[in-house]
Amino acid sequence: MEELNKKGELARQATYFLARMSSDEKKRVLNKTAGLIVDRTGYILEANKKDLAEAEKNQVKGSLLDRLTLTSDRIASMAEGLSQVAMLEDPVGEVISMKKRPNGLQIGQIRVPIGVIGIIYEARPNVTVDAAGLCLKTGNAVILRGGKEAINSNIAIVKTIQEALVSEGVPPEAVQLVEDTGRETAVAMMRLNEYLDILIPRGGQGLIKTVTENSSVPVIETGTGNCHAFVDETANLEMASRIVINAKTQRPGVCNAIETLLVHSSVADIFLPGICDRLKELNVEIRGDRNVTEIIGYAVPATEEDWYTEFLDLILAVKVVPSLSDAILHINKYGSKHSETIVTESYHSSQKFLAEVDAAAVYVNASTRFTDGFEFGFGAEIGISTQKLHARGPMGLKELTTTKYIIFGNGQIR
Amino acid sequence: MEELNKKGELARQATYFLARMSSDEKKRVLNKTAGLIVDRTGYILEANKKDLAEAEKNQVKGSLLDRLTLTSDRIASMAEGLSQVAMLEDPVGEVISMKKRPNGLQIGQIRVPIGVIGIIYEARPNVTVDAAGLCLKTGNAVILRGGKEAINSNIAIVKTIQEALVSEGVPPEAVQLVEDTGRETAVAMMRLNEYLDILIPRGGQGLIKTVTENSSVPVIETGTGNCHAFVDETANLEMASRIVINAKTQRPGVCNAIETLLVHSSVADIFLPGICDRLKELNVEIRGDRNVTEIIGYAVPATEEDWYTEFLDLILAVKVVPSLSDAILHINKYGSKHSETIVTESYHSSQKFLAEVDAAAVYVNASTRFTDGFEFGFGAEIGISTQKLHARGPMGLKELTTTKYIIFGNGQIR
Repeated sequence: MEELNKKGELARQATYFLARMSSDEKKRVLNKTAGLIVDRTGYILEANKKDLAEAEKNQVKGSLLDRLTLTSDRIASMAEGLSQVAMLEDPVGEVISMKKRPNGLQIGQIRVPIGVIGIIYEARPNVTVDAAGLCLKTGNAVILRGGKEAINSNIAIVKTIQEALVSEGVPPEAVQLVEDTGRETAVAMMRLNEYLDILIPRGGQGLIKTVTENSSVPVIETGTGNCHAFVDETANLEMASRIVINAKTQRPGVCNAIETLLVHSSVADIFLPGICDRLKELNVEIRGDRNVTEIIGYAVPATEEDWYTEFLDLILAVKVVPSLSDAILHINKYGSKHSETIVTESYHSSQKFLAEVDAAAVYVNASTRFTDGFEFGFGAEIGISTQKLHARGPMGLKELTTTKYIIFGNGQIR
Repeated sequence: MEELNKKGELARQATYFLARMSSDEKKRVLNKTAGLIVDRTGYILEANKKDLAEAEKNQVKGSLLDRLTLTSDRIASMAEGLSQVAMLEDPVGEVISMKKRPNGLQIGQIRVPIGVIGIIYEARPNVTVDAAGLCLKTGNAVILRGGKEAINSNIAIVKTIQEALVSEGVPPEAVQLVEDTGRETAVAMMRLNEYLDILIPRGGQGLIKTVTENSSVPVIETGTGNCHAFVDETANLEMASRIVINAKTQRPGVCNAIETLLVHSSVADIFLPGICDRLKELNVEIRGDRNVTEIIGYAVPATEEDWYTEFLDLILAVKVVPSLSDAILHINKYGSKHSETIVTESYHSSQKFLAEVDAAAVYVNASTRFTDGFEFGFGAEIGISTQKLHARGPMGLKELTTTKYIIFGNGQIR
């Protein structure tokens, strides 16, 4: 993988330039890039056409084809995304703490870029622009390795970005694309410890699992959301109904939608018939435990497997639990530690749920659909971390930085 | 590895108990453990004797034998360490931020235990007590896998800790030891993603490299320190001399000692003879580039390999550089991103060095020997991270925690 080592070396060189850029300079480069992407719309669409022709030849299915397709509007919206990132506050340079030690040493912790970030992703060409923008903003060099389906689009996009970089005096190697989309280049990236500081996989569960299991480069794991809503015995049932409908049906294909509804046994009889009928009207299939199937005639019996499954579809597993503790046990056993919500009017139940549920985001009386960098007010999102190291939950710009200690002395020795 | 899965499952169960413990309860358990370790001194020394007998039979060399050896004093000092950890402030439960969003959602970020921590280490039995104490303090369960040389000591120590846990009503599985010290158990731990949230290797470079390369569990890399001191053209040479002597000779076998001295060419002629003579008196071998060997008759020519080497010994590589920029280039190329210091009276040079050197701890006018959790005022240290994810530099209690988002709503949906 000599090409990859070369790219790594050049990316590392670029980091020294990037780390020295001021926030104003980075803002200017991002705005310049946004403008040039719009200017080059024709060129990028041309390249995208090649990818689409290839995809049609390979009989790629509708939803994938849609994700691959660029239009003038979509390109304009990618550029708009860059302009928005340009306007965000730059996290680099923030002094997080600064303390004077008894020996007079002044020890500070300052936020700095991570260095070189590798991103392995699948068919969406918008990830190319998005990831490049977030990395530039945080002073990181990035090596992008997209899917083969979008290779022509990605080449055109990265060439455009590099043209903008060069015109602003930034090394073009700050944003590089791996053009060889064979499996070997992905594997080689997972072993590129010499040059890559971190690796972020963006895509389906299969991709994320492969990267997590095989990478010796530190990985930020994003993604899987097997989320739950628990309706407590004291819940405002009208509110519970709204939250469950929203969390399941507003956008079922995303990670922060719920997959399982847990209902306290003391309200099961009065809550389940209404909510299930409304879900049925919205074409949601109900898979219930025995208690549920006894109450709801059209509910399908749920299997053990169902409790573990992220359906990403209009399917909801439903279970009646005898207590809050049982709900928490279920969530901690079957959940993927993403987003969990309780609907309750009880102070004690809310506190217990918040304290004992082990997940990136734990809600009281709100839909799980809010777990998102934009909804959290970060202004950007590189993914939602479901691991516990470095970042947990929605990752914004800050999560693309690290820190270093800076120590001011006047001759101290030990 | 059924035994390991079983331990993992039990450790996971214990985390739910640990996460609910108050700071006062954890303090009481740590103090109880400290007391019991002193009470069981005879029992632990007995077990240690078996390890020492085995080590002598295998003709283990002196320094390793010393590290393995326990005495009443050493056991008392291990217990004293626990009492000190007991007194530190508990990082768990700190609300790092809490903001109200325009839609009324209140989004907070709270510090919580990581969960189950795996620690793979080598011969020192004190690591067993130390790691157990830090994990308990932060509400984490720990699975310890020490070296075979210390197995009997470790079994006795962990039994004692578990006895203290049980007497305080804490699940003994909060602290578990892997008694099978075969290579396979270490490998199995690196793949125990289902139960281990993170893995920390503590030991030599070989161990750390093996774990980093083979673990699919997220790893915190600690250790290697190829550190530099740069004497700038404006340096107070008397101060430079004190710092270099201290950083090289006060304790040469540790990671924050310097391995290479870089000297600005404009002060090489006046600085090098004096410092080298003093180092020679202290039995330090000088390995110099051509400029150095021309000035210092007894300097050995340095090889390319020497610039990369963490000698951990009374050896110092010395190089003359034409500028500050060249010093920074050298450090960023050959260093291990641990601790770096500049001695200078120039504002510009200090700022440039702090900004451009890529390392966990960057110093102006002080010895690199201060990179240490205790010297930084953390009151404890689990290791010094040289990676950029999660923690960088000395890791104290805070670095053994993660965060979760807690969200307070009143019916919000998207």
